[in-house]
Amino acid sequence: MTVEDVGERGLIELFHTLIDSFPHAVLPYGDDAVGIPFGNDVLIVNTDMLVGKTDVPPGMTYWQVGRKAVVMNVSDVVAKGAKPMGGVFSLGFPRGTTRDEATDLVKGLNAGCREYGFYYLGGDTNECSDLVVSGAVFGIVGRNKVVSRSGAQPGDVVAVTGHFGLTTMGFKILFEKLSADPKTKELGLRAIYEPHARLKEGIVLSERGFVSSSIDSSDGLAWSLYEISQMSSVGFIIDSIPVPKEVQMFANEHGLNYFDLALYGGEEFELIVTIPSVKWNKAVDAVKVVGGNLYPIGIVTEEKNMVLRLPNQTERRIYPKGFEHFKR
Amino acid sequence: MTVEDVGERGLIELFHTLIDSFPHAVLPYGDDAVGIPFGNDVLIVNTDMLVGKTDVPPGMTYWQVGRKAVVMNVSDVVAKGAKPMGGVFSLGFPRGTTRDEATDLVKGLNAGCREYGFYYLGGDTNECSDLVVSGAVFGIVGRNKVVSRSGAQPGDVVAVTGHFGLTTMGFKILFEKLSADPKTKELGLRAIYEPHARLKEGIVLSERGFVSSSIDSSDGLAWSLYEISQMSSVGFIIDSIPVPKEVQMFANEHGLNYFDLALYGGEEFELIVTIPSVKWNKAVDAVKVVGGNLYPIGIVTEEKNMVLRLPNQTERRIYPKGFEHFKR
Repeated sequence: MTVEDVGERGLIELFHTLIDSFPHAVLPYGDDAVGIPFGNDVLIVNTDMLVGKTDVPPGMTYWQVGRKAVVMNVSDVVAKGAKPMGGVFSLGFPRGTTRDEATDLVKGLNAGCREYGFYYLGGDTNECSDLVVSGAVFGIVGRNKVVSRSGAQPGDVVAVTGHFGLTTMGFKILFEKLSADPKTKELGLRAIYEPHARLKEGIVLSERGFVSSSIDSSDGLAWSLYEISQMSSVGFIIDSIPVPKEVQMFANEHGLNYFDLALYGGEEFELIVTIPSVKWNKAVDAVKVVGGNLYPIGIVTEEKNMVLRLPNQTERRIYPKGFEHFKR
Repeated sequence: MTVEDVGERGLIELFHTLIDSFPHAVLPYGDDAVGIPFGNDVLIVNTDMLVGKTDVPPGMTYWQVGRKAVVMNVSDVVAKGAKPMGGVFSLGFPRGTTRDEATDLVKGLNAGCREYGFYYLGGDTNECSDLVVSGAVFGIVGRNKVVSRSGAQPGDVVAVTGHFGLTTMGFKILFEKLSADPKTKELGLRAIYEPHARLKEGIVLSERGFVSSSIDSSDGLAWSLYEISQMSSVGFIIDSIPVPKEVQMFANEHGLNYFDLALYGGEEFELIVTIPSVKWNKAVDAVKVVGGNLYPIGIVTEEKNMVLRLPNQTERRIYPKGFEHFKR
């Protein structure tokens, strides 16, 4: 039996059975990042590996590759409420990579770190058959401010920090060669090439104690909701996903369901949070103050189902599907 | 111009010119690990990437690969005087890797972390053309206990925590098919397959304030001495490198110079430290108490040359040579 047979998620579960549990873990195994007690604070550390073969779509520049490796790592750290303090990145270059390409990649790494308020501190340089950028970004958060995936309560509002569907549209344009007008194409590709992590939103939401659970949406909206559902033992009724009108039009033109594009994508680095309804108005205001948005998309339910309620009030099941390595 | 033309060390220097310097860095760019002020302490973080193609010699088991990835990372952290608190490891598996192989690798990672007193906290799982294990290990050390590469002073004793030459001998047996009796072969291969980091030694030396500079020898004894020489602006007279008698006999049999085997190797994870002579006796005793050894190998000099003084009192230059990616 090979790693392809097991699949990425199967491997993650398998590895969990093989390793000794850290007795003082602040976050459970499998959360977005790891958390280690540190005086009155918690050190949050995340590692994410970008691999050329699977994570670099055609047309992406080396600068964008470097910057994306930062965004991937930052997103998980801020989803736990921590402000990044620094990052280290180990690089693997295939032979034949040019000096200029390596230069652009490191400039992108540096630019990404500076964009999120910290520094690229160092790393390791290697030869590798694939282009690999393996980062570790760490940050600090108060002991009682850490946000796991497991605190969602029935009745909480489910909210997201941005729109969904642009990256799936971009991938369909790029890989399936679906047609789109230049402006729509540009929107989809920009979402893929230059994603954004929601630092300000994540920090203010944890700092002010607004959220009961949080996850970043990098594996797709549906899969991320499923993770919260599993770890919090709750369900969801989702009734208003923010989907850009360009994605809705693109879906209509190609006979696709735009909710599917929004739910079953990936590589979107929005935060998905649950917020007790009494705190909702204050949370919306606080996120606005830092320049962000909070879109309510539904409600947490006791029953562990994930339901999409359509505008015409019919309901559909949301499936636990998303991007998975080895499974394509 | 490609990365092979530039070479690993050229790339490290190039990248230094491209990134913004962290204004509060405790350790200079290019030291074994990075250091970030943290209250009265310093957070030491190291990332090292193990790549199947270059870091896994034939015959090494997956368990040994996992454990080696831990040793590589621990060695740099303890060389700075910090006790490891935790580690995260991102994994890249080629398609076709079996479930059992992946299992053994993760068991080796877990065993390595436990061996050095911490936990494997989590990571990321990916598909990759090469086997890749990219770790980040972090630890804490008091603000005034951090040991950089730059504090060596003329007159200091140069010392190492173990013997040199076994891994070079092992590589010659493995790759150049040089003959050796079974016991000697076993010694060389074990040094390659199951290296050890010098945790207890590194911690006690920094804790008690004995060392003026420190580096781990993973890039080879000569290259590591050169790094201290460059960063401390000093030189060395080296006159007594501890070389196992098996390596001396192996060298004699094959017409090799055993000092060359000891100086120009790599993948040995000893600490190389400099110690003010007034502290020498106490340092030796302290390391003995924790079960280690400290071997004096020479003296720090004002003149920036690196000199090997042979038993017959003739002198040879030590060249700044060692293992380098892209340069073989």
